[in-house]
Amino acid sequence: MNPLIRTVEYAVRGRLAIRAEEIRDQLRQGQKFPFDTVVNCNIGNPQQLNQKPITFFRQVASLCENPDLIQEPLIAQIYPPDVIERAKNMLAKVGSSIGAYSHSQGVPGIRETVAQFMLERDGHPADPNSIYLTQGASAGVQSILSILTQNDKSGILIPIPQYPLYSATLALLGATPVPYYLDEESGWSLDIDQLRKTVHEARANGTDVRALAIINPGNPTGQCLDAANMRDVLTLCYEERVVLLADEVYQTNIYEPEQRPFVSFKKALMDHPDESLRKNLELVSFHSISKGMIGECGRRGGYFECCNLDKDVMQQIYKMASVSLCPNLHGQIMVDLMVNPPRPGDASYESYRTELEGLYQSLRRRSKKLEAAFNAMEGVTCQPAFGSMYLFPRIRLPNKAIAKAKEVGMAPDAYYAEEMLEATGVCVIPGSGFGQEDGTWHFRSTFLPPEDLFDGFCANLNKFHSEFLAKFRD
Amino acid sequence: MNPLIRTVEYAVRGRLAIRAEEIRDQLRQGQKFPFDTVVNCNIGNPQQLNQKPITFFRQVASLCENPDLIQEPLIAQIYPPDVIERAKNMLAKVGSSIGAYSHSQGVPGIRETVAQFMLERDGHPADPNSIYLTQGASAGVQSILSILTQNDKSGILIPIPQYPLYSATLALLGATPVPYYLDEESGWSLDIDQLRKTVHEARANGTDVRALAIINPGNPTGQCLDAANMRDVLTLCYEERVVLLADEVYQTNIYEPEQRPFVSFKKALMDHPDESLRKNLELVSFHSISKGMIGECGRRGGYFECCNLDKDVMQQIYKMASVSLCPNLHGQIMVDLMVNPPRPGDASYESYRTELEGLYQSLRRRSKKLEAAFNAMEGVTCQPAFGSMYLFPRIRLPNKAIAKAKEVGMAPDAYYAEEMLEATGVCVIPGSGFGQEDGTWHFRSTFLPPEDLFDGFCANLNKFHSEFLAKFRD
Repeated sequence: MNPLIRTVEYAVRGRLAIRAEEIRDQLRQGQKFPFDTVVNCNIGNPQQLNQKPITFFRQVASLCENPDLIQEPLIAQIYPPDVIERAKNMLAKVGSSIGAYSHSQGVPGIRETVAQFMLERDGHPADPNSIYLTQGASAGVQSILSILTQNDKSGILIPIPQYPLYSATLALLGATPVPYYLDEESGWSLDIDQLRKTVHEARANGTDVRALAIINPGNPTGQCLDAANMRDVLTLCYEERVVLLADEVYQTNIYEPEQRPFVSFKKALMDHPDESLRKNLELVSFHSISKGMIGECGRRGGYFECCNLDKDVMQQIYKMASVSLCPNLHGQIMVDLMVNPPRPGDASYESYRTELEGLYQSLRRRSKKLEAAFNAMEGVTCQPAFGSMYLFPRIRLPNKAIAKAKEVGMAPDAYYAEEMLEATGVCVIPGSGFGQEDGTWHFRSTFLPPEDLFDGFCANLNKFHSEFLAKFRD
Repeated sequence: MNPLIRTVEYAVRGRLAIRAEEIRDQLRQGQKFPFDTVVNCNIGNPQQLNQKPITFFRQVASLCENPDLIQEPLIAQIYPPDVIERAKNMLAKVGSSIGAYSHSQGVPGIRETVAQFMLERDGHPADPNSIYLTQGASAGVQSILSILTQNDKSGILIPIPQYPLYSATLALLGATPVPYYLDEESGWSLDIDQLRKTVHEARANGTDVRALAIINPGNPTGQCLDAANMRDVLTLCYEERVVLLADEVYQTNIYEPEQRPFVSFKKALMDHPDESLRKNLELVSFHSISKGMIGECGRRGGYFECCNLDKDVMQQIYKMASVSLCPNLHGQIMVDLMVNPPRPGDASYESYRTELEGLYQSLRRRSKKLEAAFNAMEGVTCQPAFGSMYLFPRIRLPNKAIAKAKEVGMAPDAYYAEEMLEATGVCVIPGSGFGQEDGTWHFRSTFLPPEDLFDGFCANLNKFHSEFLAKFRD
């Protein structure tokens, strides 16, 4: 067997998640636990926790799924006219059927819609030929990392804490992750001088640092970069000649839009004062249909845009995409819908707006509520989430708990999270799955459980935490 | 850039396919060609060539796409009752929404349906926990090859001619393809003694031969193995301790079912007289929703089943699947529908049967017609397709044409195929994209163009071929 495979670790679906599935099965078979249901806070999977999909998107998708319905006279009594119109246009764009392979880079007309979206978002044009539709952002990240790396000397800068897709993919490729630390005390901020020092040290140690991965808004940390910080990041990438990989899948999960709005790295690049940087800095930015208010994880859809990449590299990316034939069409059409939703005046606009706003406000409330709940727990501090779907509280564990964890061969935060799962049915991921400063312990939890269950959910966590501390008090 | 990426070649979507897209754009813009339309015979993509999807499948899928429709009273006037019932069951199986990530191995209930299908097909049970749903068979093959290989000493036996997914994936992994030749004269048969010799020679040369890839029914060659031949293959794999990778995506594209029915390698394994072989031979078999009469390429769905694989390896496969979160749900539900279609007595059974039979008979007629057309051309011989969607005729090219190809820096069959595209708009793939015996030239063509256009299509190819020969006659 390929020995690199063994080195891959991916805690989001690791040991605890597998145990959570087991408990769910055992509950179904009537086994007794101190709770009735398993709550998966280990993964940003909104529709698993009963978030209703956006009606307009699914209505259009259902007509693309069965175009015979468009011909059906009764459908006009069921669906608003803009849904039917939109489905017709989508099928015309796709050309034949969503059951056919498309262009390997994605349907050209859908890439044009994405380019238009970026123009509206950033005030700068995008080239549809520089856009690749993908099966989720993860597939895009994996593909770009495989092209950028060569051997164990190839280094990619990844944040700590990080989303483990990065470390897992680099492990599989046999390349070297070069960690840079986010500063928890200042809200998980990115220190440019520290980052530059990290690059120089890695290079001095013989690592060929090729790219910088930034997750903004942050996962698992929820921070959102400001424009000045982003400009400095771009300058650093340009000076150090590293490709910038901007993972921007949480770009609409922004909870303090006045104080800290989302700015795309594409916009930051195009607004940068240095013309040579604007024309040369290599940027790949990723987006997804899985997050935001849309939460269509199960479809596996997304895209990346390449700026200033070498033509030859672009051809190689195309070739690699072509071996997998094409991204699935259901994901592709949802990308189109996400970036081009109903507009004011459209029959579906008001209901779309209401659903979106309802989801957003609820998510924002839940984020604040969970943050407050964590900060009220003994020995727990939790930075607010300016963005994303996660909180990453720091927990201080008694020495006795740390000793107990050691005894059972687990990281202390993994032990804590496992005890939480067994006591409450809530599945979170220990900080050790993301990386953290030595001697600190964290866990990541989504704030996605349904709002009507939220108070109970917070109370359960609080009760567990108190009992855990009481049990191990030094 | 990763140097392995450069070595990857994938002719199915290579230079000629890109040129075909260009011509399509130019036609749209009003540019004149000696034809009105581009016909993509380079890829098995039925719905691109106007094959209508199976009605029942798409009806159920449209309700899963928008479950609000199930609650809609008018829907009973549009859809038969078994469609509505099936959609309800499917959503119950999925658990929450098809917009949620599922189990990384695929929805458990869908894997149970697949296991039941294999039991009915083979007369032998299958374990749902040994089944992995995938985003098309290609993704499954890539994942298994990445686990089986380690470095450039790791060898995988691949047929010549082969579907270039195998060579492309091995190039990317930096592993070694070990070619074994199929015998054209005897209908692309597999010679066991020759195969064994290939294994021994490769091992003598220091290659660690780990697996044997077999495509059955064959792509691009259309042969279908008989049970005796398969038993010998299994014996060889067992004796030589290689894993058998059985690519069975064309298992329902069988055109002489009396003379040469499809037998799965799973069945051949379970029917093998040697008990130790049955219990130990490692087999991974692949299936897909992209081929057969269903032709749902654009969804990216499929599965593989593992037999006798080491538990530890199975865990690693699961871990790798989990990094990509899950196969898309739209592909997963179509796998369920494909392997469990309407049964006699169901409201949709008759129309399903009629559609399926119509597609099958038409495909069979087209296969025979194209085979006859090729065999009627000067210097062309074409083996019949017992299975798959392709013919792989051998062409004898005049020396002047070979010289001309050399002059423009192309393989002679690539030159021939390019001339064909420019003259007729028909895009096929040169044999050099699949591998062929030295000094022979071939091309692969699907027989998927719509039946009402088929006579014109054959006449165009014939005309082109005569003119090509006339132009270069020695």
